[in-house]
Amino acid sequence: MKKEHLILVTNDDSVNAKGIHSLVEVAKQFGQVVVVAPDKPQSGMGHAITIHDPLRLKKSMLFGEVEAYSCSGTPVDCVKLAVYEVLHRKPDLILSGVNHGENSSTNVLYSGTMSAAIEGAMEGIPSIGFSLADYSADADFEATKYYAAQIIKQVLAGKYPKGVCLNVNVPKLTLAEIKGVKVCSQAHAFWADRFEKRLDQFGQPYYWLTGEFSDVDKRPNTDLHVLKEGYVSIVPTQYDLTAYNEMDNFKNLENEN
Amino acid sequence: MKKEHLILVTNDDSVNAKGIHSLVEVAKQFGQVVVVAPDKPQSGMGHAITIHDPLRLKKSMLFGEVEAYSCSGTPVDCVKLAVYEVLHRKPDLILSGVNHGENSSTNVLYSGTMSAAIEGAMEGIPSIGFSLADYSADADFEATKYYAAQIIKQVLAGKYPKGVCLNVNVPKLTLAEIKGVKVCSQAHAFWADRFEKRLDQFGQPYYWLTGEFSDVDKRPNTDLHVLKEGYVSIVPTQYDLTAYNEMDNFKNLENEN
Repeated sequence: MKKEHLILVTNDDSVNAKGIHSLVEVAKQFGQVVVVAPDKPQSGMGHAITIHDPLRLKKSMLFGEVEAYSCSGTPVDCVKLAVYEVLHRKPDLILSGVNHGENSSTNVLYSGTMSAAIEGAMEGIPSIGFSLADYSADADFEATKYYAAQIIKQVLAGKYPKGVCLNVNVPKLTLAEIKGVKVCSQAHAFWADRFEKRLDQFGQPYYWLTGEFSDVDKRPNTDLHVLKEGYVSIVPTQYDLTAYNEMDNFKNLENEN
Repeated sequence: MKKEHLILVTNDDSVNAKGIHSLVEVAKQFGQVVVVAPDKPQSGMGHAITIHDPLRLKKSMLFGEVEAYSCSGTPVDCVKLAVYEVLHRKPDLILSGVNHGENSSTNVLYSGTMSAAIEGAMEGIPSIGFSLADYSADADFEATKYYAAQIIKQVLAGKYPKGVCLNVNVPKLTLAEIKGVKVCSQAHAFWADRFEKRLDQFGQPYYWLTGEFSDVDKRPNTDLHVLKEGYVSIVPTQYDLTAYNEMDNFKNLENEN
């Protein structure tokens, strides 16, 4: 008899978000699911970990018969606690999301959803982050669920390379409208940040981060490009940030002068 | 007359840390310095940004005649606020650190110091993160200051490629003991995490993140390797996380089945 897969599900929108409940529904088709996810929204937390505060982990009844815990920390804390304190072994697969909102392009660096998947890759565990290009709390996850099932099935069946996780983004379209899946690269696109400056009741300033995203990357096979064309984007994403192609350009720094 | 360089200095150990004051001393030799740094320790914050809370920015008198601000946010928030609300232009150079503690290997992902430099690279600004392998509050930054000056001088003189920042780590050695500088890659080394579980006054559990770092990367030219040999390590570090070499291995995901 084939051993059942052990699947960890986490996210950054917290145990209360519709997206993680949609992902758990899909994951249940593929094995035993355990949820360890933040107890409050952790969007934009990137790869943050909690060093100077203790972490809390509480049993959650929000997922019916599925074993679930809410955690006071970040998405990366959730992965670490799940592997070392809840499961006491590496799961066969980590699924993160489904995020309410796109995590394409350089947003992968700010994304708690994707940082949980990257942490999984660092643990040597096949890991996939899913995001839907719809921020609304009641977003329609039906198309995402279909493609998540397709992708999970193939990842579990195939040979998964080390050092990599997958960044999956789904456009805000119906299943009939989506054209298919493209494996592509992270677009080099950036936020032109702005801050909204206001004054508090004492006349002191405070700032809200805002801004506009602009795609300056003209390559055809980027995630932003294929999403705009109506495809689900998959970016193989690594934790090795070394710019190997640029190393020779900095060789002069080895000489003192 | 040559235009003076505008240099932004930030860190993750806060405006109160000895490391940032050492770095400002060096930076002052190369142009006009402005400091925007966290008002409290932000170690381990990775690439986190503050979305759901407003940010505070206060003038700081801790740096003498140098214009300085403390910020309630993360290191990445500091860079964004500095560029868009303080300087109102992109500085010529961003320096982050000197971090009290090493940021070699995969620690680059957790590091607030390095995330500030990576944010700088995303803004198209030459950016360098400096870390000293000594966690103590009263660490000796003399050797780091020497090498920081050498590196800054050459970075300002040369042509700096886009999309990259530098991760500089200095071993805990005297200037006489350090053998030189090596440009190298990020080691594939990982934390074997553990959690210390305790019970609070109500008998409820809480967890402290701890663990041991283990270097499983046998390549000779990694940052961990050259640091152990007594060199300053410089890793050219990019924000494009695409695993280009692995894209073909995931092409099968484009086929539904």
